[in-house]
Amino acid sequence: MLRFTKMHGLGNDFVVFDAVNQTVALTPDQLRQLADRHFGIGCDQILLVQAPIQPDAHFHYRIFNADGSEVSQCGNGARCFARFVREKGLCLEDEIRVDTRAGRLLLRHRPDGQITVDMGVPRFAPADIPLKAEQESVHYTAAAGSAIHRFGAVSMGNPHAVLPTDDVDTAPVDTVGPLLESHASFPERANIGFMQKIDAHHIRLRVYERGSGETLACGSGACAAAVVGIEQGLLQTPVRVDLPGGSLYIEWQGRGAPVLMSGPATTVFEGTLEL
Amino acid sequence: MLRFTKMHGLGNDFVVFDAVNQTVALTPDQLRQLADRHFGIGCDQILLVQAPIQPDAHFHYRIFNADGSEVSQCGNGARCFARFVREKGLCLEDEIRVDTRAGRLLLRHRPDGQITVDMGVPRFAPADIPLKAEQESVHYTAAAGSAIHRFGAVSMGNPHAVLPTDDVDTAPVDTVGPLLESHASFPERANIGFMQKIDAHHIRLRVYERGSGETLACGSGACAAAVVGIEQGLLQTPVRVDLPGGSLYIEWQGRGAPVLMSGPATTVFEGTLEL
Repeated sequence: MLRFTKMHGLGNDFVVFDAVNQTVALTPDQLRQLADRHFGIGCDQILLVQAPIQPDAHFHYRIFNADGSEVSQCGNGARCFARFVREKGLCLEDEIRVDTRAGRLLLRHRPDGQITVDMGVPRFAPADIPLKAEQESVHYTAAAGSAIHRFGAVSMGNPHAVLPTDDVDTAPVDTVGPLLESHASFPERANIGFMQKIDAHHIRLRVYERGSGETLACGSGACAAAVVGIEQGLLQTPVRVDLPGGSLYIEWQGRGAPVLMSGPATTVFEGTLEL
Repeated sequence: MLRFTKMHGLGNDFVVFDAVNQTVALTPDQLRQLADRHFGIGCDQILLVQAPIQPDAHFHYRIFNADGSEVSQCGNGARCFARFVREKGLCLEDEIRVDTRAGRLLLRHRPDGQITVDMGVPRFAPADIPLKAEQESVHYTAAAGSAIHRFGAVSMGNPHAVLPTDDVDTAPVDTVGPLLESHASFPERANIGFMQKIDAHHIRLRVYERGSGETLACGSGACAAAVVGIEQGLLQTPVRVDLPGGSLYIEWQGRGAPVLMSGPATTVFEGTLEL
């Protein structure tokens, strides 16, 4: 029998296993079955909380997509990870050091109950995004369909393009999103954000995620939009980002500094499962 | 704290509450929240197992859709109900009498582990389906788009049309399904089944469900297809019906007899929830 906890961060949802106090050995087939929303538990990703390998880390952390593949990072999942280890009494520290296959992850419990994730240092060089462009700029353009789209671009570990929009509710996420996601400008495709500025510290955002379509809350997309807006002189840190699933708060002190993303993590239910 | 069990019948999935041994009082808002696949537990329907009101019944049974509304019946849910009350030790009888707001429901555990549900007596009179037709027939026609579609029709408590197809995999479920579902011939709309005959005891079926689109396993649609095929002289009882979510077995002795539907019910996990 396996114990698990179902959690979500702004509707991005996770099945979380304590693999410190129980043995969790799941095949890709079992991972797919667990993630299935009709035949299994249902989730976007499965998170494994493991004992640390490095002596100065609190945990080792593995993340699996619903298709059974192992991936590197997810900002919404990282907040759920932090809440899980506190609720289960696995770690009561305010700052948690976690090793993932993408490197060290720093999570911090805030006094208001939100959780802050260090999302790393954004990169702007076109080759780092990657983006086909002759030189770095805060404004690029791409022709798609009959329109020319103006956008900013950044890598948050994954490629992002951010387009301005007057009204995020009517933004062409479903049409322009997929056109730009697989546009020739992005050799590894890109996440496409549509950003409406409310004021210098507040935006609304919808994101067409690479390979997934529109999602309720793209953490790296929220970081990318805030960073691009600050680079373009439109926004100032901190930035509140309203996504369809809820709000995130982004802090960034400028080039070379890491992006700090804060937001909620929610426990939905506890479960047990026979495999 | 509320205990629940997540179950499915051919992928049609349910959150089941024992409301005999715990108090379950859920508002429509809470029902919607529970059924949400990202923010809640996630399910097609929520089932409440209650103590009987009538002395000769084992249970009273209430069924709620994901939108919080209360509904009358669901064949896949009824099989899960039967497995649940046995697994929880609430009733060890092979035949279970359950009262719903649509009347008495009879469920039977079979020796092979499958569960049989009495789905009621099919009705063929056009006014009972309801279908706009001058007289009852085993073959009706309806023009939709540029084509004329030939179908059989029956009420299984809800209206069904059944169309023959040579290959269910390539049947125009997504295009012809919605056209016929809301066709003027069906004053209360209809569930549209696409049936491929393998032999007289075996069909493949896909169903465009009224108000829902294509589903993994429509129990009443499986009954309707078998009954229409038998009426048309194409099939003989019993009939195995292969749906995208798995197989059901339909028995029907002819006009005036009830349709018996047998199939599996699966427990996925046990959970607890704070509201």
